[in-house]
Amino acid sequence: MRIARFMDGKGIVRWGVMEEEEIKETKGLKGPYTGEKYPLKGVRLLAPAEPTKIVCVGKNYVDHIEEMDGEVDQLPKEPGLFLKAPNALADPGEVIPYPHFTNEFHYEGELAVVIAKPMRMVSDEEALNYVLGYTCAFDLTARDAQRKDLQWIRAKSADKFCPLGPWIETDLDPTDLGIKTEVNGQVRQNSRTSLMIFSLKKILSFTSSFMTLLPGDVVLTGTPSGVGELHVGDVAAVTIEGIGTLQISVGH
Amino acid sequence: MRIARFMDGKGIVRWGVMEEEEIKETKGLKGPYTGEKYPLKGVRLLAPAEPTKIVCVGKNYVDHIEEMDGEVDQLPKEPGLFLKAPNALADPGEVIPYPHFTNEFHYEGELAVVIAKPMRMVSDEEALNYVLGYTCAFDLTARDAQRKDLQWIRAKSADKFCPLGPWIETDLDPTDLGIKTEVNGQVRQNSRTSLMIFSLKKILSFTSSFMTLLPGDVVLTGTPSGVGELHVGDVAAVTIEGIGTLQISVGH
Repeated sequence: MRIARFMDGKGIVRWGVMEEEEIKETKGLKGPYTGEKYPLKGVRLLAPAEPTKIVCVGKNYVDHIEEMDGEVDQLPKEPGLFLKAPNALADPGEVIPYPHFTNEFHYEGELAVVIAKPMRMVSDEEALNYVLGYTCAFDLTARDAQRKDLQWIRAKSADKFCPLGPWIETDLDPTDLGIKTEVNGQVRQNSRTSLMIFSLKKILSFTSSFMTLLPGDVVLTGTPSGVGELHVGDVAAVTIEGIGTLQISVGH
Repeated sequence: MRIARFMDGKGIVRWGVMEEEEIKETKGLKGPYTGEKYPLKGVRLLAPAEPTKIVCVGKNYVDHIEEMDGEVDQLPKEPGLFLKAPNALADPGEVIPYPHFTNEFHYEGELAVVIAKPMRMVSDEEALNYVLGYTCAFDLTARDAQRKDLQWIRAKSADKFCPLGPWIETDLDPTDLGIKTEVNGQVRQNSRTSLMIFSLKKILSFTSSFMTLLPGDVVLTGTPSGVGELHVGDVAAVTIEGIGTLQISVGH
């Protein structure tokens, strides 16, 4: 099932389940059908989550650790987490203004998870039962600010630094999906989720050991190698097997 | 004016303005009066904010920098920010369970600000016009996790790591308030907000330069010297001149 958050022709935000040519409206993220239908052509897809927090994992693919600092002999023993706040969300297709405070604006394509129900102190084995579904994300990053600042709030959680979408795919095994990022049509990242250092189960279980995850919360699972700069006018797209493509562009 | 968020005798969460012996209910944080009144004796005060994010400042009093690492000759040039997520909120009087993942659970008493209206790219001069009012906070910290982890999500944003309250005081000049933290009745922190390295204006203006603050968002302004450990059974209280006292205790 594909769950979408969308804006109808009158500017009203709604949730629904996507079919071939239309969206069957639901009451909220997981609610029952309202009986209303909206033709796909007449709506704009929005970031498919209204999270209270966005939890991200750094350094979760060996090849990305190599490209960042090369210390592959010292793999992390626990997931290295950081936060984005909801102000960071951006919609599919959105034009992200080039941030005024960076000269190194980087894309990082990632698999994102949307949480279905309150999750606290959950074991690895049970963790995926708390997942509603999967979508694509960019962990946009001001790399120079990331190097300069002790904590990454500006580098990672500035406005629109977390494009998300295009929809939530609920029927998917996340353990071995192809993930590919293209910039202006050229492939820059090309990997598989099976190459994560910490599995999704482990990331969710670890997070829930100290922080209650709530319905609609979003977890980003890390980026493979091939990160790089975005410039004004660039079009970036992350495609995940079984989900679809999230595309954004960079504006002034 | 003192704005409170509270739970009535039936367990319903409400907002209101505090008078001598009662709370005059309002519709939401800033809404009009509903006409209902609740005797103070029959309610439980809650953390007076429903933020989308909690922005915190590290190293904002010189004496605290000295006690943490001593590099006072290299004062920060910009506020060093980090995030807590809303799961970290705790209520006045709450018993905070000693976190299972730390052996160094620290209190940090702080002045907190609640935002009144959307705030983006606001100058220092205009910044205080976006503040609804002031309250007390503890930036609870797992100091060992803070040393170990690159980013401080576990160290700073675990469940209940941000007690807030007891209410929002709206008529207050924040620039030179006494701030005092006591543990089991002994004074541990005793300073004034005039000793901040970055003024509140500067913190808010800087944050709004990359991140839109929304009504109800909370900003913690840093802690003075005297931080230290909490143990099971301890009672900690932070008192700020012109606001009041936020008290918590530590449980199993």
